[in-house]
Amino acid sequence: MERVAVIDAAMTQFGQRDGWIRELLAEAGQACLDTAGVSPDAIEHLYVSNMASGELEGQTGVSNALAHDLGAVPAYTARIDQTSSSGGAGVYAAWQSIASGASELTLLVGGEKMTHRTTAEATDVIASLTHPVEYKHGITLPSFAGLTARLYLETYDAPREALGKVAVKNHRNGVDNPHAQFRKEVSLETVLESPIVADPLRLYDFCPITDGSAALLFCPESLAERYTDTYAIVSGIGGATDTHVVHERGDPTTMGGVVDSSNDAYEMAEITSDDIDVAELHDMFTILEFLQLEDLGFFEKGAGWKAADEGITARDGALPINTSGGLKSKGHPLGASGIAQVYEIYQQVTNNAGPRQVEAKTGLACNVGGFGNCVTTTILENAQ
Amino acid sequence: MERVAVIDAAMTQFGQRDGWIRELLAEAGQACLDTAGVSPDAIEHLYVSNMASGELEGQTGVSNALAHDLGAVPAYTARIDQTSSSGGAGVYAAWQSIASGASELTLLVGGEKMTHRTTAEATDVIASLTHPVEYKHGITLPSFAGLTARLYLETYDAPREALGKVAVKNHRNGVDNPHAQFRKEVSLETVLESPIVADPLRLYDFCPITDGSAALLFCPESLAERYTDTYAIVSGIGGATDTHVVHERGDPTTMGGVVDSSNDAYEMAEITSDDIDVAELHDMFTILEFLQLEDLGFFEKGAGWKAADEGITARDGALPINTSGGLKSKGHPLGASGIAQVYEIYQQVTNNAGPRQVEAKTGLACNVGGFGNCVTTTILENAQ
Repeated sequence: MERVAVIDAAMTQFGQRDGWIRELLAEAGQACLDTAGVSPDAIEHLYVSNMASGELEGQTGVSNALAHDLGAVPAYTARIDQTSSSGGAGVYAAWQSIASGASELTLLVGGEKMTHRTTAEATDVIASLTHPVEYKHGITLPSFAGLTARLYLETYDAPREALGKVAVKNHRNGVDNPHAQFRKEVSLETVLESPIVADPLRLYDFCPITDGSAALLFCPESLAERYTDTYAIVSGIGGATDTHVVHERGDPTTMGGVVDSSNDAYEMAEITSDDIDVAELHDMFTILEFLQLEDLGFFEKGAGWKAADEGITARDGALPINTSGGLKSKGHPLGASGIAQVYEIYQQVTNNAGPRQVEAKTGLACNVGGFGNCVTTTILENAQ
Repeated sequence: MERVAVIDAAMTQFGQRDGWIRELLAEAGQACLDTAGVSPDAIEHLYVSNMASGELEGQTGVSNALAHDLGAVPAYTARIDQTSSSGGAGVYAAWQSIASGASELTLLVGGEKMTHRTTAEATDVIASLTHPVEYKHGITLPSFAGLTARLYLETYDAPREALGKVAVKNHRNGVDNPHAQFRKEVSLETVLESPIVADPLRLYDFCPITDGSAALLFCPESLAERYTDTYAIVSGIGGATDTHVVHERGDPTTMGGVVDSSNDAYEMAEITSDDIDVAELHDMFTILEFLQLEDLGFFEKGAGWKAADEGITARDGALPINTSGGLKSKGHPLGASGIAQVYEIYQQVTNNAGPRQVEAKTGLACNVGGFGNCVTTTILENAQ
């Protein structure tokens, strides 16, 4: 089986944006084609990662719209939805399109337009992914996060401050990311004194509501040098579900989808978690960074919280996490997030991350859908 | 590249159904696993074809819900949306999952729950796939169908009755399909005297609003005999777009996506249109059967209308079309339709179509999204 290369990446400014989903998707897609010097005619498959353009904007058929807007007709296109991990699912779909031989040049664009809706409306659309038993009781993803954070802190005797340090770290990283929604440092005091949202989690433990899009261009490894000298290889990729009903999980502080998808990705890449130099984790809520640090095998169960506390996951630490600023500071336009994670890892392993650059030949992106309901893990390696 | 086998197929009763999308998806998915004798634990990838569960029912995350309901966790899952060709796009995704080596057993389930909404509401949700320039003028897919039918009849000097004969033929075929929404013959007079919907098209030129789901099970050819003796091979598959703005097409009586996707499928299967023994076409409107008969290469441009007129496409004709009853009589639950088309071809080429059986070693399914905006064509061959 021939390996799959990522030959280009682009993303829009994340934040509160004018325009609507079509314009955001076209902006990242066009930027990706422009920097790669690729004509839209050359695209064979075009995937769009998007959760809810119909629910949020009354617009469906967005992948066809994008094929039109980019001038990519008659390229095949489809929309890939895996709720908040739609981006990661798009990466997996694009990988399959190349690995299966169906396409020799696949453009993946993901995005979401959200800020025109109130936070309550957007949160409700997202909550419609939960099991109806839970939804009808008014449970949203922030509620799950609060419950899980409380359990985690108690079970592993972790201090509340440790959660706050994740926010502080990711905001600090975001300062150097020109695409980030927030480019400002926050103090631990600011985080700990911000309004309670879902006890013990406070406003600064949550990612914002965001508009934006991101894009990646894929081809078979054997064709990559036609396009660029700086490409990366998708050396491992995997996806897995966990229970749809969150309370059915044996240990709510473990995300089975993270464990299973990363094990598949490590096995395919023939590496272990020890070989990962940098990672983008799905810090929709600060507590999720702890769970992923553990479930990806970077730290023992219950030890993830110490990583931020001790600076191990800082940009100058032994295992830099969320050098992009993460969802927390960069923002979380649902369909874009998993692609923006891979964007950052692509920049890191191809040594193009500018002021955010760390030493990295191998990087990992973990994109979490729902409250761990479905997860994709992607590993990129420097191709040189 | 190893070839991909279809080892089982199932579908629910189509029509006005109780229950909601989750229950419909689970019904077809479970039926498929049951007849194949496969445990849900064995599923590696699970794809759900669905256009609008969020818009129609306020339920998102349906692929995760299905993984839960079937007991398939931790199988990877994602939703595939390509509007009315979501089913065909799901077939393509499932094919890629096997052909790429990502999965050795993929279950595809597609469905839609629509009849709880009014026809106007459902039509409006579907119309939200169109270009906003067209949508804002109140154009829906039935409007396009009326305009195209008028142009076709004028351009090719075809009689209005020819359209009616498509409806008569497909209703006749549907009588023998226990899953069909309508199992009643209609006379040409009934069709021609039914109320006008979009002149010259009348009520009986349109498929109904339908609830239902359908499922297919895929594995590599080398593993097929583990599961069954009666499997089919996906010998060809292709997908292509046409302009999102319908009026930008050079000739509105040609669907470029049908031409391009079928050419790709024929090339992959190393056959021509002459080698197709039976086909399921996307007769959402009677006029579409003419366009596809021509754009798939079965007849010259402008000659498609004569096929139904002369009985060539009847079940006992030289090229049986829509032996299932087609969308016209079987019904059109958006996400299910492309899968139900392949279900019928699978039954035909494995000689399991019962009273609908025709002589067929090779069959084709053409699933049209939007008004030809995106099309997938799938060719199945008897494996024996």
